[in-house]
Amino acid sequence: MRLYGKNPVLERLKSNPQSIRRITLQEGHPDAGYFYKKGRQWGIPVVVVPKSKMLKLARNVNSQGVIFEVEDFSYTPFDDALVWAQKKKAAMIFLDELTDPQNLGGMMRTLACLGDFVIVIPTHKSVAVTEAVLRVACGGDNYVKVSKVSNLGQAIRHSRDEGYWIGGTVVQGGTGLSEVVFPELCGLVVGSEQKGVRSVLLKLVGQEVTIPMAQPRLSMNVAHAVTVMAYEIIRQKGRRA
Amino acid sequence: MRLYGKNPVLERLKSNPQSIRRITLQEGHPDAGYFYKKGRQWGIPVVVVPKSKMLKLARNVNSQGVIFEVEDFSYTPFDDALVWAQKKKAAMIFLDELTDPQNLGGMMRTLACLGDFVIVIPTHKSVAVTEAVLRVACGGDNYVKVSKVSNLGQAIRHSRDEGYWIGGTVVQGGTGLSEVVFPELCGLVVGSEQKGVRSVLLKLVGQEVTIPMAQPRLSMNVAHAVTVMAYEIIRQKGRRA
Repeated sequence: MRLYGKNPVLERLKSNPQSIRRITLQEGHPDAGYFYKKGRQWGIPVVVVPKSKMLKLARNVNSQGVIFEVEDFSYTPFDDALVWAQKKKAAMIFLDELTDPQNLGGMMRTLACLGDFVIVIPTHKSVAVTEAVLRVACGGDNYVKVSKVSNLGQAIRHSRDEGYWIGGTVVQGGTGLSEVVFPELCGLVVGSEQKGVRSVLLKLVGQEVTIPMAQPRLSMNVAHAVTVMAYEIIRQKGRRA
Repeated sequence: MRLYGKNPVLERLKSNPQSIRRITLQEGHPDAGYFYKKGRQWGIPVVVVPKSKMLKLARNVNSQGVIFEVEDFSYTPFDDALVWAQKKKAAMIFLDELTDPQNLGGMMRTLACLGDFVIVIPTHKSVAVTEAVLRVACGGDNYVKVSKVSNLGQAIRHSRDEGYWIGGTVVQGGTGLSEVVFPELCGLVVGSEQKGVRSVLLKLVGQEVTIPMAQPRLSMNVAHAVTVMAYEIIRQKGRRA
């Protein structure tokens, strides 16, 4: 996989340099000295290419003159993520069949900024953590655990068995977000851009949650909806602390 | 200007049909009957084109077989927006030199969902409400007032003179968002993706506000940051009501 552009690569150098296989710089890159130093320190080869080659490598992406070749994204096995989450009191976000890389990347960026979160996605019918996702995540991928499970329902049940309260987000009719009392161990199931949470999963949740809408005809982008809900969880956590 | 795709056009038909100049449908569109009916009702010409023509018209955008030609976006004069905002107790969001249409459109969509908001942008060095913005706004453009002003500082001062409390968002060192007590008439100045709020504007605000970050090295996307702050404003308003 590749990381493009200044912020994602600098963040990767700081948080997970072992995952970097190669650094490609455009000729005359102003930070070449820094990348050479880091390359020597971590044993990463640094390659310099002319601008024409860089444009070709980056295709339509604005690389800002630097590309890292990195290991594939490392998913956390669900059982490990759950143990970690219990210890950290991290909230679990179950994404039911999301398809848009922009949305997954946007959530990863925000959730990393707000606190400790685990994202759980199903193996099938779901966007995975691709290059496009990493580009949008802007380094957030280094701070959010993502688990891929074959059965999202089972993962929700398992979390509940381990003491997690799990809510399901619905467009209308649920408890208003700010009225929900989020327990220390909590999670939310969030539906896809088109279909919402499938009813088979809604049956598994303890409470249905709705972001109150001033314009019921409109719909909120799913990444923004997760941002709002994650903030409310973190806000309540702060008040308990 | 053009609107592409099902949700933006249906929303426009409902909220502002007078602004539609022409409806272009792909041959065999499943909802052709509905669009013909609405076209007759509002006196809008409906044109049917073959798939090849539609693809050409839509360039790289997924049009879902329908394009509306609409009037240019209608900005609200700042003085009118301010009077309206005072009446509605709407919050004002001042965007200091934002450049990314994706971010402006994302904010418009979310702010329309959450409640009454006015967005104020400067005429120069700022993204305007373009087709790309409308595409992302998904109909939110029908419910958020946007004012364009030649001097953002003057607009902030004017709002304060009219009784508005204005906060300025800073990446660190401000009052934590959930600790801020937002008055009934309130607004926030939000900085650009790269530079934050200019110091000349920060001097005009009553308080500096920060979204607490779990990972100080990361930065939140500006549209997600506005989403979080707008939610907090609406949440506090709900508790006062």
